Amino acid sequence: MISVEDARNYILKHFAPLEAERVNLLDALNRVLAEDVIAEMNVPPFNNSAMDGYAMRAEDIAHASRDHPVALQVIGDVAAGYTATRAVEPGTAMRIMTGAPMPPGADTVVRFEETSEGVQGRAATKGRDTVEILVAMKRGDNERAAGEDIRAGQIVLPRGTVVRAAEIGVLASIGKNQVATHRRPRVAILATGDELVALDEPIAPGKIRNSNEYSNAAAVLQAGGIPIRLGIARDNIADLTAKIRAGLNADADLFLTSAGVSVGDYDIVKDVLNAEGAMHFWQVKMKPGKPLAFGILRGKKEVPLLGLPGNPVSALISFETFARPAILTMLGKTNFARPTVRAILDEDVENSSDRRNFIRVRVEQRDDQLIARTTGEQGSGVLTSVSKANGLLVVPENVTRVRAGTSVEIQMLDWN
Amino acid sequence: MISVEDARNYILKHFAPLEAERVNLLDALNRVLAEDVIAEMNVPPFNNSAMDGYAMRAEDIAHASRDHPVALQVIGDVAAGYTATRAVEPGTAMRIMTGAPMPPGADTVVRFEETSEGVQGRAATKGRDTVEILVAMKRGDNERAAGEDIRAGQIVLPRGTVVRAAEIGVLASIGKNQVATHRRPRVAILATGDELVALDEPIAPGKIRNSNEYSNAAAVLQAGGIPIRLGIARDNIADLTAKIRAGLNADADLFLTSAGVSVGDYDIVKDVLNAEGAMHFWQVKMKPGKPLAFGILRGKKEVPLLGLPGNPVSALISFETFARPAILTMLGKTNFARPTVRAILDEDVENSSDRRNFIRVRVEQRDDQLIARTTGEQGSGVLTSVSKANGLLVVPENVTRVRAGTSVEIQMLDWN
Repeated sequence: MISVEDARNYILKHFAPLEAERVNLLDALNRVLAEDVIAEMNVPPFNNSAMDGYAMRAEDIAHASRDHPVALQVIGDVAAGYTATRAVEPGTAMRIMTGAPMPPGADTVVRFEETSEGVQGRAATKGRDTVEILVAMKRGDNERAAGEDIRAGQIVLPRGTVVRAAEIGVLASIGKNQVATHRRPRVAILATGDELVALDEPIAPGKIRNSNEYSNAAAVLQAGGIPIRLGIARDNIADLTAKIRAGLNADADLFLTSAGVSVGDYDIVKDVLNAEGAMHFWQVKMKPGKPLAFGILRGKKEVPLLGLPGNPVSALISFETFARPAILTMLGKTNFARPTVRAILDEDVENSSDRRNFIRVRVEQRDDQLIARTTGEQGSGVLTSVSKANGLLVVPENVTRVRAGTSVEIQMLDWN
Repeated sequence: MISVEDARNYILKHFAPLEAERVNLLDALNRVLAEDVIAEMNVPPFNNSAMDGYAMRAEDIAHASRDHPVALQVIGDVAAGYTATRAVEPGTAMRIMTGAPMPPGADTVVRFEETSEGVQGRAATKGRDTVEILVAMKRGDNERAAGEDIRAGQIVLPRGTVVRAAEIGVLASIGKNQVATHRRPRVAILATGDELVALDEPIAPGKIRNSNEYSNAAAVLQAGGIPIRLGIARDNIADLTAKIRAGLNADADLFLTSAGVSVGDYDIVKDVLNAEGAMHFWQVKMKPGKPLAFGILRGKKEVPLLGLPGNPVSALISFETFARPAILTMLGKTNFARPTVRAILDEDVENSSDRRNFIRVRVEQRDDQLIARTTGEQGSGVLTSVSKANGLLVVPENVTRVRAGTSVEIQMLDWN
């Protein structure tokens, strides 16, 4: 049986960032740049005022103070979005608003609060042709230089950058309304089994609901992929073969099946997978999730297939461990880590297998510390053990018991 | 000036979870249940086998061992999705697959590996009418009881549950293809300023790109809201009034403006907001983000308005601090916390203001510890200081300096 690391490394060797596509700016959110984005302009594009106040020459107010104000002639004003109609010359100042371009000749801005206008109020000073400056400033004070944020010609966001709201803002600020990102992977999802009943059909004796199709589709969406739901394949060669080919024809980049990959001669799934491609391994040394198939299907192109276990808990843990990193890789992401916290384990946890154990836990604050408790019965059919959990405690293969009171690292799932 | 806590508490008093709507199962992902979901069936619906093996009566194999195997008559087999056609009686066993209903009479399952079939192989034993059992088992071993995961009548997911992939699976397992969730908030986004130019228009002297509209829309999407982009309002009463009314007519649940809320007489925005509603405050004791308006617009209903600052960094930090919790509240979420890490600060950080300082930092692993460095120039116009950051260091109002080497808590932004 292959270890979790070996399985993951082997699987991920078969994935790479998908080809680039140009998308509208907001569609790039949570995707990864497939190009170095070069700024064609400075940001800000021109020297401008960082404050509402008066623009002038620093030299003119070198000795200004509250006790010895310097009076300057007001020669106009300039609002954001407009340009000064004349230059600031020695002894003059121009009223200026935040973001407005610096008038030619001006090299500093004094904010209203440090002028007679600020002290006496706008109402009292409006219409006066002079303003008194109450402080000395250095050249460039309260001025934002052209290119302070971004310089024309600069690679402002390199290929590989994950696009968040801040990056969307950066791209907008340099006028990019489209950008090249790795396209989202299409993930075919096929549930298998004669026991499965679709959600909109009546249930019958011996049958269960097809839940894996939905939890897998949700997990694909959450990771950034596009789920292609193929429905349920029955346990016969014709139906399985037809549905797998349908997925391949739907241009899947990854194929997820659930169930049919453990030991047992009703598992026709394995025969069909071997016929439609080449399967590389069938088991991983983990619990839950021991049955885990990986191989390559032959369609118009070769498509990696992950055969997830049928037990719903195992399917989710295997998805988290193998499918999520594969999807993130295709998106161009390189950081697969979940946030982690350290918590005090509140009960003994046993690992009776010699496999890596993924224990579902609930982490909660108690007094000054974080406490982790298991979510009860950890059977691989007990899906509520995952829905009650906000984290995973990973117990290594060679550890048989973790005692209550131990400080443990928890991988947090689906942080808001 | 009002503190960050006071502002946030005051603002959030004006928000509550929005009304419920029934959505298709996969559309519930990342939303919050607005109903207690009650299971109408057991999961699993029937006692079934946890293993591939043989079902029998525990009593019959009470003394079985490898040295003293017990032979049982094989009376048939049962696959997942089917029901046994006859009962298991004393001295008999039925071949059974994982997930198949337990045949009447059987109370335990012995997996193949512990039978003559497992030892000798299927090929050698196929067709034989007896099987030898090599272990004793307890009643109920390798059997999953009906209702082990979920009991009929139980509240399986209470109102307020955030729907993740696991919850989607739980809902599917009890046959829910629709569920009641709080609806997603509609967030009107209005950029203001004569200096702004849309992304698809030529830029002119004194003008800058309208980036806040896009970063705000992205942040709204990321938080789970629906952005309603109203474009750019010019700095005149007619245009501002018309665009605000357009937003109200578009059934906004929250109104976000950017710019026009700081001190300065070109700020017609304030006059219009006061005319279209009642503004409650205009400033918060934080840096960046001091100009922050909050009030209530009067439309068909009352709509809270957050007037974000015009500086792009300030706008993002203010969004994070106030708009994101408001959107999450409307979605029904109660946990607004970002994941945090402790890191060693790699340089002195000054807080020259008496305001709460939100320093953009990059946290990286160095040797065995996490190191946090500022992302360079922290000016409120330097949007790349946010795009380079993966976390925020929040320096309290009364702290003027945090020294290099200090262990600090970092709020991590946009974890993958």
